[in-house]
Amino acid sequence: MEKYRLIDKTECTINDSFWNRYTALVRESVIPYQWEILNDRIPDSEPSHSIRNFKIAAGTLTGEFYGEVFQDSDVYKWLEAVGNVLLLERNQDLEAKADEVICIIEEAQEADGYLNTYYSIMEPDKKWTNVLECHELYCAGHFIEGAISYFRATGKDRVLKIAFRLANHIETVFGPEEGKLHGYPGHQEIEIALLRLYEVTGTKRYLDLAKYFIDTRGTNDFFEQEFEKRDRICFWNKAKEQYPNRRYNQFSYKNYNQFHLPVRQQKEATGHAVRAVYMYTAMADLAAKTEDKELFAACKELWENIVSKQLYITGGIGSTPSGEAFTLGYDLPNDTNYSETCASIGLMFFAQKMLLSEANRTYADVIEQALYNTVLGGMNDQGNRFFYVNPLAVVPENCKASTERNHVKPVRQKWFACACCPPNIARTLPSLWQYAYTADKDTVYSHLFMGSEAEIKLGEGSLEIKQETNYPWSGKIKYQVKSKGRDRATLAIRIPSWAPAYTVKVAGQEVSAEVADNGYVYLSEDFANGLEIEVELKMTARILKSNKNVHYNLGRVAVTRGPIVYCLEEADNGKYLDLIEFDPSEPIEEVPSKHWSGVTELKAAGVREAAAEESELYQDYQGQKETTEIQMVPYFLWNNRTPGEMLTWMRVK
Amino acid sequence: MEKYRLIDKTECTINDSFWNRYTALVRESVIPYQWEILNDRIPDSEPSHSIRNFKIAAGTLTGEFYGEVFQDSDVYKWLEAVGNVLLLERNQDLEAKADEVICIIEEAQEADGYLNTYYSIMEPDKKWTNVLECHELYCAGHFIEGAISYFRATGKDRVLKIAFRLANHIETVFGPEEGKLHGYPGHQEIEIALLRLYEVTGTKRYLDLAKYFIDTRGTNDFFEQEFEKRDRICFWNKAKEQYPNRRYNQFSYKNYNQFHLPVRQQKEATGHAVRAVYMYTAMADLAAKTEDKELFAACKELWENIVSKQLYITGGIGSTPSGEAFTLGYDLPNDTNYSETCASIGLMFFAQKMLLSEANRTYADVIEQALYNTVLGGMNDQGNRFFYVNPLAVVPENCKASTERNHVKPVRQKWFACACCPPNIARTLPSLWQYAYTADKDTVYSHLFMGSEAEIKLGEGSLEIKQETNYPWSGKIKYQVKSKGRDRATLAIRIPSWAPAYTVKVAGQEVSAEVADNGYVYLSEDFANGLEIEVELKMTARILKSNKNVHYNLGRVAVTRGPIVYCLEEADNGKYLDLIEFDPSEPIEEVPSKHWSGVTELKAAGVREAAAEESELYQDYQGQKETTEIQMVPYFLWNNRTPGEMLTWMRVK
Repeated sequence: MEKYRLIDKTECTINDSFWNRYTALVRESVIPYQWEILNDRIPDSEPSHSIRNFKIAAGTLTGEFYGEVFQDSDVYKWLEAVGNVLLLERNQDLEAKADEVICIIEEAQEADGYLNTYYSIMEPDKKWTNVLECHELYCAGHFIEGAISYFRATGKDRVLKIAFRLANHIETVFGPEEGKLHGYPGHQEIEIALLRLYEVTGTKRYLDLAKYFIDTRGTNDFFEQEFEKRDRICFWNKAKEQYPNRRYNQFSYKNYNQFHLPVRQQKEATGHAVRAVYMYTAMADLAAKTEDKELFAACKELWENIVSKQLYITGGIGSTPSGEAFTLGYDLPNDTNYSETCASIGLMFFAQKMLLSEANRTYADVIEQALYNTVLGGMNDQGNRFFYVNPLAVVPENCKASTERNHVKPVRQKWFACACCPPNIARTLPSLWQYAYTADKDTVYSHLFMGSEAEIKLGEGSLEIKQETNYPWSGKIKYQVKSKGRDRATLAIRIPSWAPAYTVKVAGQEVSAEVADNGYVYLSEDFANGLEIEVELKMTARILKSNKNVHYNLGRVAVTRGPIVYCLEEADNGKYLDLIEFDPSEPIEEVPSKHWSGVTELKAAGVREAAAEESELYQDYQGQKETTEIQMVPYFLWNNRTPGEMLTWMRVK
Repeated sequence: MEKYRLIDKTECTINDSFWNRYTALVRESVIPYQWEILNDRIPDSEPSHSIRNFKIAAGTLTGEFYGEVFQDSDVYKWLEAVGNVLLLERNQDLEAKADEVICIIEEAQEADGYLNTYYSIMEPDKKWTNVLECHELYCAGHFIEGAISYFRATGKDRVLKIAFRLANHIETVFGPEEGKLHGYPGHQEIEIALLRLYEVTGTKRYLDLAKYFIDTRGTNDFFEQEFEKRDRICFWNKAKEQYPNRRYNQFSYKNYNQFHLPVRQQKEATGHAVRAVYMYTAMADLAAKTEDKELFAACKELWENIVSKQLYITGGIGSTPSGEAFTLGYDLPNDTNYSETCASIGLMFFAQKMLLSEANRTYADVIEQALYNTVLGGMNDQGNRFFYVNPLAVVPENCKASTERNHVKPVRQKWFACACCPPNIARTLPSLWQYAYTADKDTVYSHLFMGSEAEIKLGEGSLEIKQETNYPWSGKIKYQVKSKGRDRATLAIRIPSWAPAYTVKVAGQEVSAEVADNGYVYLSEDFANGLEIEVELKMTARILKSNKNVHYNLGRVAVTRGPIVYCLEEADNGKYLDLIEFDPSEPIEEVPSKHWSGVTELKAAGVREAAAEESELYQDYQGQKETTEIQMVPYFLWNNRTPGEMLTWMRVK
């Protein structure tokens, strides 16, 4: 049993000026756009072909499989996004589309429950022979997650039955028993899905299989044996290779998929960042569900490693494009990094599952750090252009010229050949209600601040909470709290680590409320007649520096306000942003944005080196500096105007 | 006919406190060390196996070929270095070793003149089937250069006969005639060698073949056809590939080997940097030898592109490790770059050949920029450790952690699997005499400043020149000049572009000597009775900035003095070099080095941000700065003490 529980949709409805816009965007723009993509109806973008793949696998169309070996997952993530949106409000048109897709998926599922269009179409006799590279379990996981989401929203169980058949089929293939594969996924994800399936059904077999995948990983040479059996042929280039999978970077090929050690012995986040955080998510979930202290301790150590050494200030993770991977502590370059949007979403998942075992603000702090910066920044303000890679400094000319920066796109793209990020954003944004609160027997924890109406069940009775806020632009949060079926209860409110000060009022009276060690103020009150709680987090611009071991940021500062990281754009500050030095001794002014309604921009002072016209490559330094105004916008809103340079870590005067 | 001519060894002997040490180091340390390497007698270093390969090819040993497909060239470059050293002073022991190697090479040469141990041992029926990837012409070029060097030093023609047989064999394989391959090398080098062979023998066939290789390049689809014929199999991974060779970076696969355009139409330096400058060297040589103005104009445009947009201040070229290649203008990152030692050597070659057609200081300026910084920096002060990659900023922790910086070694290596750089240094340093002067009918051009005794032939008579200098630490150069067989002549002395001022004295009297447009002062005098010419180049520390389009260097300056670029090392300035800001308003003091005799170090003032002990990844900026002393050492001497950080472009206050 989890020590704390996540809330159910029935317990909380977001109603928030900031987030309503995003939910509408996902429903009205992102999901329809992605539907067009999945059906290959968007010109000039990477073709998807994924719906066609299912029809071909089902035999209703003829043709070849096209796309990545994990192309199916695009459909499944779209389905999950649809389910998450329908859970907020049902919609006939959208359900009709989803039902059509589910029907096609059902037709593509084989008699024994197997479901993967690549293998069904291309190599039906090679199923489960390349678990390391070929994503069958990954796709299965996404299907199961999509199925649960759609079922939860609509109550239609046809999709869930496909998921049961698929999960049951996987159980016949993998496991400790003789004759089964003693393996685990090359791309973690099925573990998360099986644990959700266990939640929905209570069927312990699903939890057991998830546990098997987690605990067997890194304990045997499954991938090496599999590699020998397939004659050392690499899936990607069809050539004989020395190692079971590509060696993406200077670390062992085992690090890439996190099988370098049994998971309980892993202490540093390593390898492909999305694989890593998906795995840690499942580990944390399993640890909570089974009260496995050793496993939780391993999760905690991995968490600490990320947060104290491998986390961008924007909530990004993954310092290198080579293997889309973690590297080592303090290696956080700003313009050669990766920081995949999906990885930050995975980090939110991981943090959320940690909250099942421990109420500590570090988890919600990081959820909002990732959400308000990298995740939101992964999409433009119209919901139809996306970043896969999220740099902290961009010079478009360098992205074009430098091979080490060429993976960084200076403008958001319509779609990607490997299109994991856009649907990942689409499934995450409508499900933020589930991050707002957790609860135990007597206490409701308020983690994220967003206008909402909730009724959270406690051991006995429940707590009605209406939350009002203009977060993230204001630090004022007002709670109207009323208990039902009990009198006293506790509301624990996160005081984010970014807040230098805060006040708490109960029924209009300021009270002295200490922050507990875990970063929450605990308000134990009689809520029987309703009580107004007001928290004000002091929200002013902060000037931050990095730990000195992040050499890339020496002599530089970043500016944040609340959870929002700010950046400089060429559109406001002209070209050659690194000619500017920020003056930390001058005040930073908060100004309402002219470009985005409700958004707070910042204005600061600095100096700028005069940039003369010059033809020589090197010349005598003149060093003329003049004072200048510095205009800063929220990082997540960058690149919504004229494309150009962007800079997060500014040079400091 | 070249407009200007390079001098012959008989015309000039270097005798210089700075350079004598390096010549001795090459003779007494580098060449013997490399001999041990070639014979696999150095423990803990990359094995060479190259002498064994020749013995196996000759049939005197049995075994497999080992090493790179171009492993033979290590032996050839060693042989060239030996020849260059013996040209200065013959040495029985060294000659005995070389003669032994030549004997082995001769035995490895096939009856028809073919010479390449990889193909002779491994794939005797596949010769000349993969000219793009497999370096047969490259190795042949290096052998011919080695042979000429050894013959020139010793007069022993056995080695030259092997070269003739090899060149004649190549002539039967390549050329415009039907039945021959209408191809050109995948790695340019043979063109340089054939032009040298033409110089030595006067045999025009060799020049014609070089011209054929140069002019055919990029005009047909030879490499594509060859690729189809070998069934699209890539040499490196033995797999079927989409393109004839690996696509190393975002540019076309054709750019890598510079066959994207006919060479006369190429306007930007692109692709593998060493291949590029070797090709440009041959182009410039051919343009001079055949008075081909169009070809010279192409060379000049490529030169301008490099010098005005793609040249590191250290004389390094090649901004990316991916393909060891040029990228685009102003893309000059300091810590992800490549700047291969060999590429800077090739740039010296290119510049020297440009001097055959045009007397302009840009060529000698760049020769000394490359030589005194990247080339010398490629080797340690003991002659037994080498850099392949020459970064301008190093943080050892980042080199370890960051995949985009992992190619940068923070300490010089004993040897390399691909061991081109050490022998390239070894062959270049003893041959610097040939860079000191060029001449035409009436004028001797003094390009590089180094103590030397010369007698340079003119159209009629000659000019005896004794040069004394403490360059590069002093800007004073004294020439004792005496004409023989004529009275009047002209000595043209380069005034380097780095010199802000200079004085010229003739017979002790300061004269007003204008710098001509080409950067030389022309002193036309009656030298019949001998005349002392003294030039003093004002040599003080300069503070340089980059063109603003080099975004990587915005807000940064570098310090140079004369041709020497300076840098900061951790050994003198502590860790976290980027915490230091250089103060350009304070004087820079010249101080004699305590570590290296005769060397001038620099001391400057600046401020340093206090680096507190901190465990958090991000924290409030305090911004305490204190004044600090900055100690700078010549870039070429970095990493000769305790390993640590190094920085060339300092933050400026």
